[in-house]
Amino acid sequence: MTNDDGYLAKGLRRLADLMRQLGKVVVVSTEQVKSAQGHSMTINEPLRLRLLEQSDDFEMYVLNGCPVDCAKVGFQMILDEYPALLVSGINHGSNASTNVIYSGTMAAVVEACMDGIPAIGFSLEDYSHDAYFDHADSYILDITKRVLRDGLPKGVCLNVNFPKYSEENPIKGVKLCRQATARWKEIFDKRRDPHGREYFWIGGEFIVEDDGTDTDVYALKNNYVSVVPTQYDWTAYDAMKQLKNFEK
Amino acid sequence: MTNDDGYLAKGLRRLADLMRQLGKVVVVSTEQVKSAQGHSMTINEPLRLRLLEQSDDFEMYVLNGCPVDCAKVGFQMILDEYPALLVSGINHGSNASTNVIYSGTMAAVVEACMDGIPAIGFSLEDYSHDAYFDHADSYILDITKRVLRDGLPKGVCLNVNFPKYSEENPIKGVKLCRQATARWKEIFDKRRDPHGREYFWIGGEFIVEDDGTDTDVYALKNNYVSVVPTQYDWTAYDAMKQLKNFEK
Repeated sequence: MTNDDGYLAKGLRRLADLMRQLGKVVVVSTEQVKSAQGHSMTINEPLRLRLLEQSDDFEMYVLNGCPVDCAKVGFQMILDEYPALLVSGINHGSNASTNVIYSGTMAAVVEACMDGIPAIGFSLEDYSHDAYFDHADSYILDITKRVLRDGLPKGVCLNVNFPKYSEENPIKGVKLCRQATARWKEIFDKRRDPHGREYFWIGGEFIVEDDGTDTDVYALKNNYVSVVPTQYDWTAYDAMKQLKNFEK
Repeated sequence: MTNDDGYLAKGLRRLADLMRQLGKVVVVSTEQVKSAQGHSMTINEPLRLRLLEQSDDFEMYVLNGCPVDCAKVGFQMILDEYPALLVSGINHGSNASTNVIYSGTMAAVVEACMDGIPAIGFSLEDYSHDAYFDHADSYILDITKRVLRDGLPKGVCLNVNFPKYSEENPIKGVKLCRQATARWKEIFDKRRDPHGREYFWIGGEFIVEDDGTDTDVYALKNNYVSVVPTQYDWTAYDAMKQLKNFEK
């Protein structure tokens, strides 16, 4: 298990508790919040690993790196053999649509997938520190058990997102979806530091340009859990024919 | 234009010189080396932008961020309208095969692609600081001109890699390829700091598990330029049917 919200995150603790119902759990968490770090690896800084907790069926480590580092260190430095499964999350915030591309949570999942390990990322459409996760429990256990039993197709991992908890609009079920097309429109917040020098923060607005009813964004909006089968082969096979004239 | 090797990189300067033959060029380079930072964004640190050089047909900025930040800042803070093209590189080191997933150079390209801007990443199979780039010149110009003229299919960008220069084995041509299947097997170099505390570096060995003759790795090994059409829709459509029973 890993995540990108740091080892104190409520979502990580929640997922760990759920996974312990299913078997032995080894957590390698990031020390710091590493949201929006994509498939980043730590190659310019020395890495340090700390063991925080250890019992017969549970180990928890903290690493001063990114989720991808956590996955690599877990698989090849801590464990004697590859695990039956990697799960990442529960992320505080959605990784639906093109957010998957920026996501540290999903980067660890993709990393596991490249190593041939069944892998699932769980994320919740709620950024708050104290997000409510209970409504996701039974779905997480069900999806995880299914993957442990049946495996996943070669080269494919799962990006699972949950709607924010709502008493009036409970979850209706699970939808298998495609990744919605969307993009971030940046907003730059320009400021001046106490020394008079300019700096700025990147913020942004998420713009969904996709009317499809088969997308993860649509499923979430309609109170379904979205499951997007996700692959690390980025080749645009459909474009091959059209681009054939690049060859020479 | 951007890159992930920092503004002093020879490959960046080379690509800028080539692009200036084709039109007005605006470079937003990372200040530091940001290799293997994937689709990382800078959201926890303030950003600072410096203008280094300015003439009628050329501007060069340096940003203390990642390639994705550079693309976003270029598009939405510096330029008045989206550019005709984003190019990234020339990267010192291959971004063929699954290296595309870790690549900062290609992350900027994918970012542009999400914004609907034609985008190309150029990389050379040579990590050295003083890599030789001349043999790539005519191919870079040719591919770039073609993209400027014809555009690219929606949602598709190009990952272009060049073999390392070899006098005995000159480039034979250009191959349109798929991304080879491969993975990194990590090697952890454990050390002890002067204070007696353990730390380690992540290194690794790249293992290609793909015998295909249609891959970028195969093309490069046989002295071809590899062009992989690359998409940011990571949905594994082929797996949809098999996973349909996840719905409920």
